[in-house]
Amino acid sequence: MAHGTVAVSSTEQPPGRRVRKAELTRRRILDAARALMAEAGPESVTILAITERADIGQGTFYNYFPSRDAIVDAVIFDVVETLGQRLDALTAGMSDAAEIYSFSLRHLMQTAVSDPVWGWFVVRLGIAQDGLLKALGPRASRDIQIGVDSGRFNVDDVALASAMTFGSLLAAMHSYLDNRSAEDPSQHYAENLLRMVGLSTEEAHRVSRLPLPPLPDLPR
Amino acid sequence: MAHGTVAVSSTEQPPGRRVRKAELTRRRILDAARALMAEAGPESVTILAITERADIGQGTFYNYFPSRDAIVDAVIFDVVETLGQRLDALTAGMSDAAEIYSFSLRHLMQTAVSDPVWGWFVVRLGIAQDGLLKALGPRASRDIQIGVDSGRFNVDDVALASAMTFGSLLAAMHSYLDNRSAEDPSQHYAENLLRMVGLSTEEAHRVSRLPLPPLPDLPR
Repeated sequence: MAHGTVAVSSTEQPPGRRVRKAELTRRRILDAARALMAEAGPESVTILAITERADIGQGTFYNYFPSRDAIVDAVIFDVVETLGQRLDALTAGMSDAAEIYSFSLRHLMQTAVSDPVWGWFVVRLGIAQDGLLKALGPRASRDIQIGVDSGRFNVDDVALASAMTFGSLLAAMHSYLDNRSAEDPSQHYAENLLRMVGLSTEEAHRVSRLPLPPLPDLPR
Repeated sequence: MAHGTVAVSSTEQPPGRRVRKAELTRRRILDAARALMAEAGPESVTILAITERADIGQGTFYNYFPSRDAIVDAVIFDVVETLGQRLDALTAGMSDAAEIYSFSLRHLMQTAVSDPVWGWFVVRLGIAQDGLLKALGPRASRDIQIGVDSGRFNVDDVALASAMTFGSLLAAMHSYLDNRSAEDPSQHYAENLLRMVGLSTEEAHRVSRLPLPPLPDLPR
């Protein structure tokens, strides 16, 4: 999906400044849509509400996104796919499937812990949301398959284990966000899922407590 | 919640017939609301759409339910709480926490397999839905706690494990319903969660394959 594609009407401004301004406007539209989606869920967002919040005209909106669905997709891509790519960058050089799976799960959960607005956004998208499934589902399946192929995991049905990983992530986030007095559930969450995919109690405990390497930033 | 409370305007009919008629009307409203909620999600249901589908007047609707939220709650209660009560009846006499947990999980999943409309309904409600959480959350927590107290489960955070049970249920249902060529995931689903709560691979396999006792009907 070419979410970066931007059509800007030509003006007399120099190109560098024009591109920067277009980027700022696109970012403002995305931020407004994201805030509205976090408040009321993606199904309630209208183009009118987005343009009012971003303080732009509807014509300007259509210079950047062709439809309501396109902006909703772009927000979800922005919010979830970016994190997915950072996780890919983190785990690309790792060889132990249990560490790859556990580090990814802990970072996903910790992002919700450190950024509750992001967490609520993902929880409200829900398990049946297409963009979320597309961004996270294949990554979970890939990581579990690496564990099966290397003999580290004991999983009969990778698609099922991937769906369960994904659903339990959202439910654990929701439970944490709904009751903030709870402690950060990242390690227990990863430990539970490491046992689910077949690690022994001792191994699941050990791997889930390893120092968590920081997420790398993506190259611009 | 007194969902059974019904206010019916008095008529000249004999009481038995009047009560039966009121029950039929209430059932018609619930069925219409349930069908609309299954199609478009609970947030999109309006009283107007329900009364049109049930072919009754809006005044009649308000004789049975005080508000839109009340009918939505009543449908969810009807659909999920009834199954919860049947699971309670099934497992009341059992002593092994692993069997109680596993039988409940398999029945929940099999209900979605045998009744996809029910399954989609529950999936669309989503993990953040209050009525669903209230009907299933405390039961999952109770069953996991029995396992912890009896030493059968190894769970540090019962609330987290309960949320993960619940979220993975909805995601596994969604994955199955979205791809019906898949086989019934009930046993693998239960096996995965038995491992998650601390059973060994061998025990989780054995318990998840036990013959599944049928769900008892509730006394009327």
